[in-house]
Amino acid sequence: MSTSIGPIDVDALRARLDRAGTAAAAADVDALLISPGSDLAYLLGVGGTSFERLTCLVLPVGGTPVLVVPKLEHPGYAGLPTDRLGVDVATWVDGEDPYKIVTGALRGTGRVAVSDMMPALHTLALRDAIGGEQVLAGPVLRELRMRKDAVEIAALRKAGAAIDRVHARVGEWLRAGRTEAEVGADIAAAIVEEGHTEAEFVIVGSGPNGASPHHGLSDRVIEAGDVVVVDIGGPVAEGYCSDSTRVYSVGEPRFDDVRSTYAVLQAAQQAAVDAVRPGATAESIDAAAREVIAEAGFGEYFVHRTGHGIGLDVHEEPYIVGGNTLELEPGMAFSIEPGIYLPGRWGARIEDIVVATETGVESLNNQPHELVVLPA
Amino acid sequence: MSTSIGPIDVDALRARLDRAGTAAAAADVDALLISPGSDLAYLLGVGGTSFERLTCLVLPVGGTPVLVVPKLEHPGYAGLPTDRLGVDVATWVDGEDPYKIVTGALRGTGRVAVSDMMPALHTLALRDAIGGEQVLAGPVLRELRMRKDAVEIAALRKAGAAIDRVHARVGEWLRAGRTEAEVGADIAAAIVEEGHTEAEFVIVGSGPNGASPHHGLSDRVIEAGDVVVVDIGGPVAEGYCSDSTRVYSVGEPRFDDVRSTYAVLQAAQQAAVDAVRPGATAESIDAAAREVIAEAGFGEYFVHRTGHGIGLDVHEEPYIVGGNTLELEPGMAFSIEPGIYLPGRWGARIEDIVVATETGVESLNNQPHELVVLPA
Repeated sequence: MSTSIGPIDVDALRARLDRAGTAAAAADVDALLISPGSDLAYLLGVGGTSFERLTCLVLPVGGTPVLVVPKLEHPGYAGLPTDRLGVDVATWVDGEDPYKIVTGALRGTGRVAVSDMMPALHTLALRDAIGGEQVLAGPVLRELRMRKDAVEIAALRKAGAAIDRVHARVGEWLRAGRTEAEVGADIAAAIVEEGHTEAEFVIVGSGPNGASPHHGLSDRVIEAGDVVVVDIGGPVAEGYCSDSTRVYSVGEPRFDDVRSTYAVLQAAQQAAVDAVRPGATAESIDAAAREVIAEAGFGEYFVHRTGHGIGLDVHEEPYIVGGNTLELEPGMAFSIEPGIYLPGRWGARIEDIVVATETGVESLNNQPHELVVLPA
Repeated sequence: MSTSIGPIDVDALRARLDRAGTAAAAADVDALLISPGSDLAYLLGVGGTSFERLTCLVLPVGGTPVLVVPKLEHPGYAGLPTDRLGVDVATWVDGEDPYKIVTGALRGTGRVAVSDMMPALHTLALRDAIGGEQVLAGPVLRELRMRKDAVEIAALRKAGAAIDRVHARVGEWLRAGRTEAEVGADIAAAIVEEGHTEAEFVIVGSGPNGASPHHGLSDRVIEAGDVVVVDIGGPVAEGYCSDSTRVYSVGEPRFDDVRSTYAVLQAAQQAAVDAVRPGATAESIDAAAREVIAEAGFGEYFVHRTGHGIGLDVHEEPYIVGGNTLELEPGMAFSIEPGIYLPGRWGARIEDIVVATETGVESLNNQPHELVVLPA
C-alpha cells in the first residue's frame, strides 16, 4: 500500500521533476532511479513502500520519466495525475524482469544515481542490468529537498505546533510508579490525537536510561527523583515530520548536579540557535553548542552531532556536524539538540526544529526550555 | 532503538554464525556484511533499525565477526553476549569513517555479500571503501533462513493461532456504515490484544477495493452486499510473523457470481495445500492453484504468485511462483494465497501459512475457508 502525502499540487511536482533533471545533469548524472520512500514522495507526492518487488521512478535526463511498478501495487499510484505530470507508467507482473524495463527506459548505459534508501536487492540487480556507473541520488536531490518552500515550511510549522501540544501534556502521564512503556503508549496516542498521522518515535529515557541518546522505551519503573528525557515526533498529513525533546524531573531531581549541568545545556542550545543565519556554516552551529558544553567541562559527555535536517524524513540534510561546511540558506530546516549524558546516572537533551530565514532564524518548537519539574 | 526478538539462545546463535560462514564459503564469498533487519535478527537475536549511520555485522569467512555500531546506538546491542558469541564490537562516533572500520575487519578486498535490505547509502560507500566485488547476502542466508528449526516453527505456529483468533472476531467490527479505516483500526488493536507486538499490516478491501490485491485501508464506507477481503498479520514477541486472509460478505453478496467464483478459489487454495510435500517444487504448488483457477476461466484475474515464505520477514524465501524449481524440504514455511480479482466489482483471496513436514503439510492457520457472511 502506498502513503499519500496529502493533496497533490501538480504544478509544484512538475517543477520538482524538472529541477531534479537539471540537478542530475549538473551532477553529470544521466538518470535518477528513485525507489519508494521520501525521495519518491518529494517528486510524485506518493511515497509508497519498498517491497521485494521493484517499484522505481526512472528519470532520464532529457527524457520522459517512467514509473515502473508491479501491477498489483499499481492501485496505490492510480490517483497520480501521471498524464499531467508527463510521467509514463510501466507495470509488470510476477515472472517478468522489471530491471529490463528500467534499462529500456534509459538511453543506454552511463552514470545512474540510485536513491539512498534503495535496498541492495534492487541496487545490485540494476547495476547488473544497466552496467555503467552507480552513484547516490541523495547528493543530487538534497540540493532540492534541503531548501524548503513556503508550503513545506508551513507543514513543518504545523508539525512543530502539534508536537508542542504533546509536550505541554506530558505531565498528564509521566509520574513515579509507571513504566517508560506505559508512559510512552499514552504519549504515542496523544501524538496522533494532536494531529500526526502516526507516532513515528517515542523515547522516554528515565534515570540512567536518559544517558543513552537512542534509548527507546523499556519496562523500567519510573522513580521519584528521576530525570526523564522525552524525545518524540512523527509526520503530519502533509508528510512532514516533527521532532522535539524536553527534559522532565519527577519530583526534585535526585542528583545535586542536575540543575547546574542542565543550565549549561540550556545555554549551549540557545547559543546554537542564536548562531543560525544565512551564510553561517552547518559546522559553526555545531561548534556554537559544543563550545559552551566543552568550556563547562562536559565535552566528553556530548557524544553526537548537534542536529539534523528534517522534512519528509526525520533525518535528512543538512546535518549540523563538525566538518560540514555547507552555508545555511533561507528555507533550510533542522534540529538543534545538544545533549549531556552521564553514564549510569542521568542524561538530558533539548531539541527544537528551527528554520533559517532571510534575517536569522525561526523556531518551530516553542515550549519553554526549562527543566520541567512534575509532581512525583 | 533496537528490536529484540525474545530470549537469546547463545548456542543457537553461535551455530547460525558458524553456518553462515560455511554457507558464505560455499558461495565463494569472502565476507558477509549484514545491516540491521531480519538477517541481523537471525544471526544476533537483535534486529535493530537502519539509520543513516552505519551499523553492520562483518562476518569474514574464517575470521572473527565484528559488529560495527555507532556509539550512540550501542546501548541497543549492549545486552548481547558478544563474548560468548565470539563477536567483537567496534563503536564509532560522528566524524569518524565507519566504512574504514569495516575494511579493517576484512582480509583485503575480495567478494563481499551485503544484506538484501542494505540501503544504497551504505552499499555504495562500502563498495568504494572495500573495492572488489559486491553480491547479495540473501542467496547465502536464505539457505539457512528458509529451513526453520523446531523453535522457529513453534513461533510461527503461535503467530498463526494469534491471527486466527483475530479473524474469529472480525464480525465484531465489520458492518455496513463503517469505513474501512475504522474497521481496520479495531482489527489493528485486536492484532496486538491477541498476542502480536504490532499490527504490521491491515488490509480491509471492501467492494471494488477488494479487487486491488495490495489495497490497504481507505475512507470508503462499507455497504450492505460488499464482499470484503481482510488480510492481516504482524510479528509475535519471538519476531516471527503471521499473515492470513479471509473473505467476508456484509449481508448477502451483491453480485450473483460471488458464490460460484469463490468456490473456484476455495478449490484452488486447497489444491495447492494438498500438493505440498517434501520434494515437490515451489512452482508446482503455484501451478496447482493456478490450474484450477484457469480451468474455470478466471486465469487472467489471478494476477500474483501463489505465495511467499515467511519467518522473521513477512515476505522471504521460498517464493511460490512459476519458475522457482526449488524442491520443498521439511521446515519450509510459506503462504498459499491464490486470489481472484474482478476490477471495479469485487475480489477474494484465501491465505494460510503452511509448513512442509516430513510427510506432507501442516497448516498454521485453521479458521474455516468458507465465505463468512456477516449481518449487514
